[in-house]
Order: sequence, then C-alpha cells, then structure tokens
Amino acid sequence: MKKRLRDLGEDALIARLLRGFPGGEKLIVGPGDDCAVVDPGRGPLRLLKTDAIVEGVHFLPETPSEKVGWKSVARVLSDFAAMGGVPEHLLVTVAVDPEKPVAWMDGLYRGIRKCLATYGGVLAGGETSRLPSGAMISVAGEGSVERKHLVLRSGGKPGDLVAVTGRLGGSIRGKHLNFAPRLAEASWLVRHLRPSAMMDLSDGLAKDLPRLAEASGCGFELGEVPATRGCTRAQALGDGEDYELLLTVSPRRWKAICPLWPKDFPPLSIVGKLLPRGQGTSLTGGWDHFSP
Amino acid sequence: MKKRLRDLGEDALIARLLRGFPGGEKLIVGPGDDCAVVDPGRGPLRLLKTDAIVEGVHFLPETPSEKVGWKSVARVLSDFAAMGGVPEHLLVTVAVDPEKPVAWMDGLYRGIRKCLATYGGVLAGGETSRLPSGAMISVAGEGSVERKHLVLRSGGKPGDLVAVTGRLGGSIRGKHLNFAPRLAEASWLVRHLRPSAMMDLSDGLAKDLPRLAEASGCGFELGEVPATRGCTRAQALGDGEDYELLLTVSPRRWKAICPLWPKDFPPLSIVGKLLPRGQGTSLTGGWDHFSP
Repeated sequence: MKKRLRDLGEDALIARLLRGFPGGEKLIVGPGDDCAVVDPGRGPLRLLKTDAIVEGVHFLPETPSEKVGWKSVARVLSDFAAMGGVPEHLLVTVAVDPEKPVAWMDGLYRGIRKCLATYGGVLAGGETSRLPSGAMISVAGEGSVERKHLVLRSGGKPGDLVAVTGRLGGSIRGKHLNFAPRLAEASWLVRHLRPSAMMDLSDGLAKDLPRLAEASGCGFELGEVPATRGCTRAQALGDGEDYELLLTVSPRRWKAICPLWPKDFPPLSIVGKLLPRGQGTSLTGGWDHFSP
Repeated sequence: MKKRLRDLGEDALIARLLRGFPGGEKLIVGPGDDCAVVDPGRGPLRLLKTDAIVEGVHFLPETPSEKVGWKSVARVLSDFAAMGGVPEHLLVTVAVDPEKPVAWMDGLYRGIRKCLATYGGVLAGGETSRLPSGAMISVAGEGSVERKHLVLRSGGKPGDLVAVTGRLGGSIRGKHLNFAPRLAEASWLVRHLRPSAMMDLSDGLAKDLPRLAEASGCGFELGEVPATRGCTRAQALGDGEDYELLLTVSPRRWKAICPLWPKDFPPLSIVGKLLPRGQGTSLTGGWDHFSP
C-alpha cells in the first residue's frame, strides 16, 4: 500500500523532507526553530519566518474575516517573540475562492492592518491567487533580534526550570482568533530573565515541551499547569493554539528575577524541570497536522 | 447583489486592499514591483518576495510533483532576477491533502532542491499544513542586489526601447514547469545594458507591458513579438507564464551594448517603445486571477 502523508507525523515528515538541503554561510539557525536566523555580519540578527492558515483547519468559513486576518499575522509575530525579536517587514499571500465577497477580503486586510498597527511590522508586499475553494493565508516576514537577546529552543540544560506565560487550553473558544502575541513579554524576558531556551506554544504543551526538550538534548518532568478557567489538565496540555511562551531558565536566575515580572503581564508559571536526556516523563497528545 | 472577488480585476483588488497601510523607514520599494526592497543602511539592498502556486490553477493533480517543486521556487528566483538581484534564503510552506502519497511530497522537495542547487539560494525553513483538498505551495524569500544594480518597473522614459528575452507564448506545453529563471541574463543586463526598467513576464506581455508602462508613467507602442514556434501573436501576448524578462533601455545604450549580448543566452529582442503618457496602444488579454 502506498504510504500517505497522514501515516507520518508532521515532525517525521519535515525531518524527511529537509534531508539533503545544504545550509548557508550566513544561515546560523535553519529549519527546526521558531524562526530561521541569518547573520548579516554586523548589527542585529535577521529572523525569517513563514506561516499559513487554512479555512476548515485554522478557521471556519463563517469566522469573521477580520479575525482571520489578525490571526494570520499574530501567529508570525508570536514566532518573532519566541526568538526574543521584533517584526520588521511582512509579505501576505492570499489564495481564495473568487466567489468570496469583496467584503470578506476587505475584512481580512482590516484585521491584518490592526494587528500590525498594534504590534509593529510593515506590510511590504504579497500576492493574491485563485483557490478552487475556501481560503488560505500565508504570511512570511523578517524580524530582527539583538545578538545578545537571541534565544533558541536548544539552549536548555538539565536542572533548568520550565515556565509558561498565561493560561493554557480552551483556545478554540475564542483566544485562537484574538490572542496577543507575547512580544512585550518576550522583550522583557530576554532583557531580564534571560531564558536558556524559548519557543511559542502552538501545538499544545504536550507536543511542544517534548520538542524543546529534544532540541536541548534533555528529558523533562511536568508538574501543575496553569489551565484556562473551565479547562481540564488534558485540555491545557493538548488543545493547542495557546500562543503563549514556553521557556527554560536556571533556578538561580528565576529566584532573582521572577519577583520583578511586571504586574500587568499575564502570569508566569513554573510547570516543570529539564532533566538529563532519557530521564523523566513522556507526553502524548497535542496537535499534529497529518495524523488522523 | 454582493460584489464577489471575480467582479474586480486582480490589480484593482490589490490596490484596494493596500490602501491605508503605512510604509516603513527602511522599506524603499513596497507592494507593486516584482519584489519589495529594504535598505538596511549599508551594503547591498535586501529583496523580499512571496509567491504561491495552487493545484488546479498553476499545476494539475497529475503533474509530477518534482516539476511542481521546481516551478514553485523558480518563480520566486525569476522575481529576484527581475530586480537585478540574486536569491539568498527561502522559506517553503506546503499545504496539502493528507491523503497525498509521501512520494508526492518527496518529489516536490526533490524539485525544490534541484532548482536551488542549479541557481543558488538556501532553504532556511518553512511549514507544512493540512489542506482539505489539493495542494498549495507558497515560497517566500529574501535576495540581495547591489545598490547600483537595482532596477524597478518605474524607471522607463518616453523614447526608451522595450525588449524581451527569449520567446513568448505556449508555456502551457511544458515551459511553465521547467523554465530557467533568467538570473544570469539579468545579472549581465544590469552590469552592461543597464535597463531603465525591468520586470518578469508572468501574466503575459499584454498584461505586463501595460503594468510596466503605467509604473513608468508612459504609454507604449508594440511591434513584432518573438513568438514560440507554433504560437500565434495572440498566444505570445496572452498566454502568460513566460518567465522571461521585460525591460526598457535608452536607444543609445541599446545600440552600444546589444552587440555584446552573449551568444549562449536566449535571444534579446526589441518589441516596442515607450511613449509619453496617453500616447500609443492599449492592450487587452493576459492572465487575471480573479476575472472570469
């Protein structure tokens, strides 16, 4: 029987596809982190990211298109935040059924405009294409990060504490469409707490914490998780689309800096600890694009 | 009656959507040219581009996926060429029906890899997502161009000659899947001929020449066009997906430099002349994503 994409997990698929691609001199972080990182030789590092949302997968045909536009851009900004950086220039590609009302497209761009006006970033270009049905919005962009502020997924060490911003789970009730990318929080974190590793939570802690631990060559243990009101622990771990920050930090640094966490930020909570590789828990669940 | 996207042309739609987006300090060319251009303050300029191809629009379900991969990347490289630049880092987003065979995806990435190995450019990252049916490949990337080599669509002047590389029309017979992005030709052109304006031909000369003339604030007249063998003039003007370079140049420069055009390049032919605004021909036809 022919193997279908659904028979492979998303991570396995990506690993398979990327075999045999040479790196580049200036590409200091390639596929596998929240953004790619380019070193232009001097000044801040450049972050590159692309992300797409699809009708019927990430939003519904009846979702107000302004929220769709917001979400399409906010997801990319969340990835810049996860590296400790800020957005600069974005390109938006919209592939859409020509039968959609013009008002739908107007709403989409209103949402994009609002998100950029709120969080920064300049629309530099894009493209429109026909799609036989539905809609897909693909947003690519470049951001920048000061060299000393760059945080990767791979910097965690055994003994580091694992923390998350905000509360997890239940995003489907609305947050997945109007979440705030954690740019201000990330900027504070890289200046003060200096996380050893960081990423954004898009596929659920159950999927994303193992990814961070794996990238850092560690195991992990998991304690209590700050769940959204009304959500079970399983939902907090598995629902996905939280767009909160997941980070690791040395216990000493945590103790010194955590009391300074600004009161107007969402809560910052310890949820576990990194352990030497091979030790600790394993988790299942979370969102996978290609599994049944 | 509600207005549908198909009731607006693609150019009118884009103009409508982009109203109200602020520019950025470093963004020296925004939407409307083949690439956006960012000035980092020193050194080469940065080119940003995104482009997408869709199953059922730009390729068929039965098209070998290796050719689809090639095409998805070659289109973006053609846009870097059109600005006088070279590719640097690319991001590839694939949204695809999970029922596609894994071999389809392997072929796609083989095509991407081949195209990058042939023309330069580093795969820096990307994303995969489920699509309810079919496939869409969105490629975003950054390139670079020496300041003195940057060519825009808007630099043409009345009296400039209009030229194209290669032969036009009939791309659907195969060239649209295996065309060579004109990077070497563009590099030669910006060094020697120094075009006043340039773009790549993706929607057909009938659509793209008016765009270049409009951007340059000119009218134009059109003479003979080098058609692909077996193609009529109407096909050469309207078929689209030629991925040749369309450029303008002063008659004096043309006379001096044209004899040096390398013999192993495709032909370089004069097809017309820019005129003062309001004078000359108008053209209809060419490819529009949203018109019926």
